[in-house]
Parts: sequence; C-alpha cells; structure tokens
Amino acid sequence: MAKEKPSIPQGTRDFLPHQVQQRQYIFQTIKNVFENFGFLPIETPAVEKLSTLTGKYGEEGDRLIFKILNSGNFFNHLDTSLWETKDYAKISYQICEKALRYDLTVPFARFVVMNQNNLVFPFKRYQIQPVWRGDSPQKGRYREFWQCDADIVGSNSLIYEVEFIQIYYQALKKLGFQNFVIHINHRKVLQAIVDFLNLSDKFLDFCVAIDKLDKIQWEGVRKELINKGFENETIDKIENIFVPQEDFLQTINHLIRYFQNLPSGIEAIKELQWIYEVIKFSNSEIISHLTLDLTLARGLNYYTGCILEVKLKDVKIGSIGGGGRYDNLTALFGKEGLSGAGISFGIDRIYDAMNELNFFQNLDLKTPEVFIAYFEPSQLFKVFEIANFLRNQNIRTEISPKNEKLGKQIQLAVKKTIPFILIVGEEEIQKETYVLKNLATGEQKLLNVAEIIEFLKNGRN
Amino acid sequence: MAKEKPSIPQGTRDFLPHQVQQRQYIFQTIKNVFENFGFLPIETPAVEKLSTLTGKYGEEGDRLIFKILNSGNFFNHLDTSLWETKDYAKISYQICEKALRYDLTVPFARFVVMNQNNLVFPFKRYQIQPVWRGDSPQKGRYREFWQCDADIVGSNSLIYEVEFIQIYYQALKKLGFQNFVIHINHRKVLQAIVDFLNLSDKFLDFCVAIDKLDKIQWEGVRKELINKGFENETIDKIENIFVPQEDFLQTINHLIRYFQNLPSGIEAIKELQWIYEVIKFSNSEIISHLTLDLTLARGLNYYTGCILEVKLKDVKIGSIGGGGRYDNLTALFGKEGLSGAGISFGIDRIYDAMNELNFFQNLDLKTPEVFIAYFEPSQLFKVFEIANFLRNQNIRTEISPKNEKLGKQIQLAVKKTIPFILIVGEEEIQKETYVLKNLATGEQKLLNVAEIIEFLKNGRN
Repeated sequence: MAKEKPSIPQGTRDFLPHQVQQRQYIFQTIKNVFENFGFLPIETPAVEKLSTLTGKYGEEGDRLIFKILNSGNFFNHLDTSLWETKDYAKISYQICEKALRYDLTVPFARFVVMNQNNLVFPFKRYQIQPVWRGDSPQKGRYREFWQCDADIVGSNSLIYEVEFIQIYYQALKKLGFQNFVIHINHRKVLQAIVDFLNLSDKFLDFCVAIDKLDKIQWEGVRKELINKGFENETIDKIENIFVPQEDFLQTINHLIRYFQNLPSGIEAIKELQWIYEVIKFSNSEIISHLTLDLTLARGLNYYTGCILEVKLKDVKIGSIGGGGRYDNLTALFGKEGLSGAGISFGIDRIYDAMNELNFFQNLDLKTPEVFIAYFEPSQLFKVFEIANFLRNQNIRTEISPKNEKLGKQIQLAVKKTIPFILIVGEEEIQKETYVLKNLATGEQKLLNVAEIIEFLKNGRN
Repeated sequence: MAKEKPSIPQGTRDFLPHQVQQRQYIFQTIKNVFENFGFLPIETPAVEKLSTLTGKYGEEGDRLIFKILNSGNFFNHLDTSLWETKDYAKISYQICEKALRYDLTVPFARFVVMNQNNLVFPFKRYQIQPVWRGDSPQKGRYREFWQCDADIVGSNSLIYEVEFIQIYYQALKKLGFQNFVIHINHRKVLQAIVDFLNLSDKFLDFCVAIDKLDKIQWEGVRKELINKGFENETIDKIENIFVPQEDFLQTINHLIRYFQNLPSGIEAIKELQWIYEVIKFSNSEIISHLTLDLTLARGLNYYTGCILEVKLKDVKIGSIGGGGRYDNLTALFGKEGLSGAGISFGIDRIYDAMNELNFFQNLDLKTPEVFIAYFEPSQLFKVFEIANFLRNQNIRTEISPKNEKLGKQIQLAVKKTIPFILIVGEEEIQKETYVLKNLATGEQKLLNVAEIIEFLKNGRN
C-alpha cells in the first residue's frame, strides 16, 4: 500500500467534533425559527446537470462551477476537431454533463418546476446544504461552504418581507447577537431615483457606484461616476438625495418629495413604509435594528422589489445575510408568473463571528457524561450492565477500553473532558454501590445505579 | 433566458419536506444512540483529492469514483502525447485532481492521520454524510446516497464489538423494527476452517462461494467450489462443518472440535463466545436477534476480526448494515499500529423499509400548527402581533397570504395540512378573543392569545 502524506483540497475543511456540534447548534437554531414561520425543509442533490446551472450565474459564475468528468469513456461525446483548438472551456462542456451545485436558489427553482404537482403554493421552503465554487480561497471564503436559505414562491404579498425581517431578528437574537443592523432598500426606489435624474439608461453604473459609498465615501463614488460619464451637476443632485436622514420615516418623507411624478417610486416607498409600520406595531424591538439604506443595491439583475442585507456592528466580517424579492425566477425552467422572495444566512461567517465573540463558551457539547473504570476484565459483565441502564436513560456513557491502573483510566477520562468517572471494583459490585467522582472538583459519592441516573440527570441544566 | 425542461442526474434525488423530516428522524434517532455510546460527530469535505481515494477501493471502485475537472485550463498538466492514445482512464488522472467522496471510511482514515494531534485515542467518531458512486442506478441503489458510520480507532479491545451489536439493537428498536437479525462471524474462524482443510491458499475462493450459501444453497456452492478446483471430498467436509447448529453456543462447541491444533481459530472462537456472554449478561433481550453465521464473509480484504451484518426478516431489501474489526486502516496514510472497528447503517434501505412497514404513519411532522386568517389588510397589524406571540412560544404559525374569502383561506390551510385555523376579524380584534377552529373535527373555541398558546401546546403529545 502506498503511503501518502494526506491533505485536503484548498478551500475545503474537516470539522472536529466540537466544530460539528457548534455548527449544528447554529443550523438547529435557525431551522427552529424557519419552522416557527411555517417554512418546510427540502433537499436537492449536490450533483446537478451542468445544463441546469450553466448561464444562470453570469460568465464569471460559469467559470467557477465545478464540473464532473463523465464516467467511462468521456471521449464518446467529444467532437475531435474541437480538441485541436484546445478551447478548454468548450471542451469541458462536451466531456462533463454534471456539476456541483453552485448555490441553493437555481436548484430550488428547478425543484419547484419539477415538483410543482406535489407542492402547495405559496410554497415556503428552507434548505441548508453545502455549495461549491472555484473561487480562490482566502480567509472566510471557502470552495465548499454552507448556504442556509428560506424562500417563498407563489405570492407577491408583502407579509413575507415582514416575516423575513422578523426571521433575521429572531434567529440572530437566539444565537446571541446584540449589535446587528438589518438594511432594507427597494429596487424600484433606486429605479425611481435614476428616472428622476433622467438617467434611466445608466441604472447599473449608478447602482454599482452607490453600493460602494460605505467603503469609498462620496469622494470615491464621485470619481467612479465621473468615469462613467456622469456630470458634476448630476452627482451633486445625487448627493442631495442621499444625504442621511434621521430615521426610517424621515428618509421616506425626504424621498417622496422627489417622486411626485414617479408612481412606481411612490409605490415602492409606500411598501417600505407599510413594512416599517407593521413591524413597529407587532415587534417594536426590531425597529432599532432596522435601517432604510438607500445605498443597498446587491445583485440587482436578480431582485425586483425589496432588498435586505444584515451586518454585524462589532465584528468586521462583511454581511452575514441577504435576500429580497424576485419575480419569475422559475421562468428559467419554463414556469412563468411565480413571484418569490428569499433570504440567506451566511453560516460560515456567522460561525466565525460567534467564535470571535465567544458565544460558544457556554454551549453544552454532547460529549460523554460519565466514564466507567474497572480493574479486572471479568468486571466488564457488570460494567456493561450498568452502562446499559445509563444509556437507556440517554446518559452518554463511555466504557474504559482497558483495565489499566485507575490513575491512567482517570487520565483518559480527563483528556476526553468527561466530567464524571464511575468506579466499578469488586467491593462495589458486591455492595451494588459505586463511586461516582466529579473529575473537576474531586468530590465523590457512593451511589447505586438508580441514584447515579438521578444524580447525572439532575446535574444537567 | 433559455427555457429548459428541468431534470436531475440519474441516481440522484430531490427530497420533499415530509421526506426530509422522515430522514432527519432516522438520522436523529441513530445519532442519539451513537452519542449514548460516547461517539462524537465529525464531518469531512465532499470533495477529496483524487490521490486520496485512488487505489483504495480496487479497480472497479476506481472506475466508479466521480472525478472533478480541474478549474481553468485543464490542459495545463496534460502530457499531450498521451492525448493521442485516447487512453481516457489515464488522461482523466491528468485533468482531474479532485473527486467526490466514495465512502466515509477512507476519508475517516485520512482525517485521523491529519488531525491526530487534536484527537484523544481511542477515538470514537460517527459521521452521517452523502457519498457518490458511478454505479448503474437501480431500485434502491443511488449515485448520491447517505452513509451513516460509527468507528473507533486506537484500541483492539473487544468491548467495541459488544457496543456495536448493542448500538444496532438499540437503534433498530427505537426506529420501530422488531424482526431483525444481527449476523456475526470472525475472519479468523473462516481462516481456521481453510487451514484445517489444508486449503489456506484458496481462502478467497472459499469465502466468495460460502458467502452465497444463503442465495444459491449447497448445490450452487458445490458447483462453484468444483469450478474453483475443490475436490468433492473436501466439499463434503466443508458441508459438515457448516451443518447448522441449534444456537450460538452449540455452533461454538461444534467448531472447537475442528480447531484443536489451530490456536488462532480457538482464539477467534473464544472472542465470539466472550462477546456472546457479555451481551447475554448485560442485554439478554438482544440474544434472540444475534446469530453466529459462519457463511458471513463480507469485504474480507478489509476486515481482520469480527464481522457484522444486519438483515430484516419481514422486508426483502438485503442487508441494512454491516461492519467489523480492521487493523491498520490508517497505514494507508502513513500512521501504523492503530487497530479499529466500525459499523455502518444503510440509511436509504432503512428509509425504504420503514416506508414499506408504515413506520412513518404516526411521525409528527414539523408542519405549521396554526394558520391565521383575516378579512382586511388593516387587520394584518393585529395578525402579526398575535403571530409574534405564538412564534415566540415555538408554535409553528403560518399567516394567510391574502385577505380572500374565509372559505378559500380554509381551503389553503387544509391543503397545507395545517390542523388549526385562527380567525382574526374586526369583532374578534375588538374583544381580543379569536375563533380557533380544528379543521379535522370542525370544533371551534373562542380564546384569547394566552389561551390559544396554552391550548395548542397542550394539544401536542
């Protein structure tokens, strides 16, 4: 057998037991919130047809999709004259029919179209699965990473925008975050601004520049807009529109003045106002976390209504979630007229932030609760009998692998961070009472099996 | 945008909400048992280096591994003279450096070697993740399927064989199975039999034939052995050795007579006897599910001690689990001297069997518990306030997407199999008591929010 120094591909990770449990805790907390809001879980295969994914993420996206080589003789479908050209991109589509999922949204659209007869609309689903992208790995960016999405398709009701804001709030609070901001904007507000300025044809340039205000300030935005052919006078007007207002409602009043002759702008503003007021009435504690951020413009070729993004104030880690309203996503696969909306949690960033903020310090990991030591192999009969009682009561129990010296057995239990050791010696077996010792405090008690079970169960929170 | 009739690759599956929840129930039940026995979860990446996997599963296995095409210009590493040969197998190794995980065992060995400084040995881990194989799909066989493994490395103690049998028993019982058999055998018993017959060089032929006894009876096994050059006289002797005995201990006594001069055979027999006796003493109810099956010979190039396999009696579905003791698995990656043992649950077959046996009939799915109907958009303020109270109490709540006629709203709730509807009309809002209606019985009550919460919580099992 060949011996290799093992490694894993760049941008992928092994997860140790405590990491799996911490991540499961995040998943479980968010799932629980999704379910409280009536969302149901689905799962799609990691491997999709390449044709399902191609062309859905732009040219750059297409390049980053991991393609799977056809099994067997992959030359079968290859146009050999193409080979001579060494056009690797074209050749790749002839020797690969499958690919790894790039996100959860396109597979979801495919799922909805394929399974539409088994779904009740509006359909609310959540999905927590890994995705793969050939990006260059860097701190906080992986090639295999998890997405955690909730989407609703089949309704254009604004109640879902309200629910998504509430979901962000509930989930982040439950995870322990205090200082976070939910940014909201509306695509039609941005559209109305360029319409007001008679710049409708420069919508994209405008959005790309304004989205960077946060990072490059007005000076940078101005430079970028000038490069794109905007006039100084126009940029002054834009700066006026974007002058920060005191709060959500002030911002709305400020905008309305510009939109007198732009009914779709007014409509968008009214939508934002309604969302704000419902949230203020039903969960007023969210309001201090909610901001109308006119510079928010993420993924505009995709969203058609409200846009959301969540950021932490006390950890520099970028956005930890985002989403919005989109129309007609399923049209990609031939099903027209289904409006939808969705959000995503950036699990890997949330995990990193929670580590940085020490949120996992008090998380109870499901490591064994008690370690059973013994001195003779013959005592294993009794040891297994006791372990059986404990395990039937869902007490996580580990049996010492060897009847070595007690000190060594204790050492192993300590290394495994098992809090209690149960000592099963000859005298203990005779008397049917056993020494249960707390390895942190050294405190010990003589207990029978029923008492051990009661004691360990009560010791849990 | 191109419109495609969407489909998914052969041998992959979408999972609908009830399927995800049923499968999660299986995972959760087995995880819980693993944890009671002190096993800890790990996760490894879906994408491994191709070199990590190649050569570990035999020639056939190598062919079935899904390879991932290198990103960018995959010609970079290609020896172009090789191209002329069209040797697609060789070329595939030059244009692919990554591959999809083929099982959980080889990645686990790689994980142990890479992370050895962060692990405490003996290390007990469980892992539930998908794997991919290019097998031709057929009923019950998928190209993307789940493995659910528990392994221990770093000890040759027999206590783990006992624990694995107990784990199978506990998990299958908790899932609802009654009629299952845990088959056990020992590689060194099979070795001792061929040694006794002076056929040590024909060990593999012998095992392959005898493993089929169940399917092709003695007549078939005899034919196969004759084809492999066994003499009729020898086959008669084999048949005598394999004459079914009354029970576990009788089988052991029967074998011991043949093994007088074969100490490793005697040792193996003693191991089986010890396992049997510990289980009889500590969990006697398992004994009726445990059988010493001398014909069990699965994956012998892999196992070195006890072998286990689990079958259902009332569903024809093949084995639903298997495992055994192996020595030196981590030597593949340069770490010698770690004995290990492990078992696997065949999740996909268990799921199919549970469906066939209607085990999911009474499983509580986490669908919404209450649907809130209303008549005017303005009532949504109150609706959201009530929903907020319910959701904060972990009551799964869905709000009607539209203020349409009550009949239509009820229809939607029924389609979504939501058991209760809560009606929030003008009069209800004035009186702060709302109609809560059971959609199955038609029974309805007038309750305030606190009473609604209490009623719905009590209604859970």
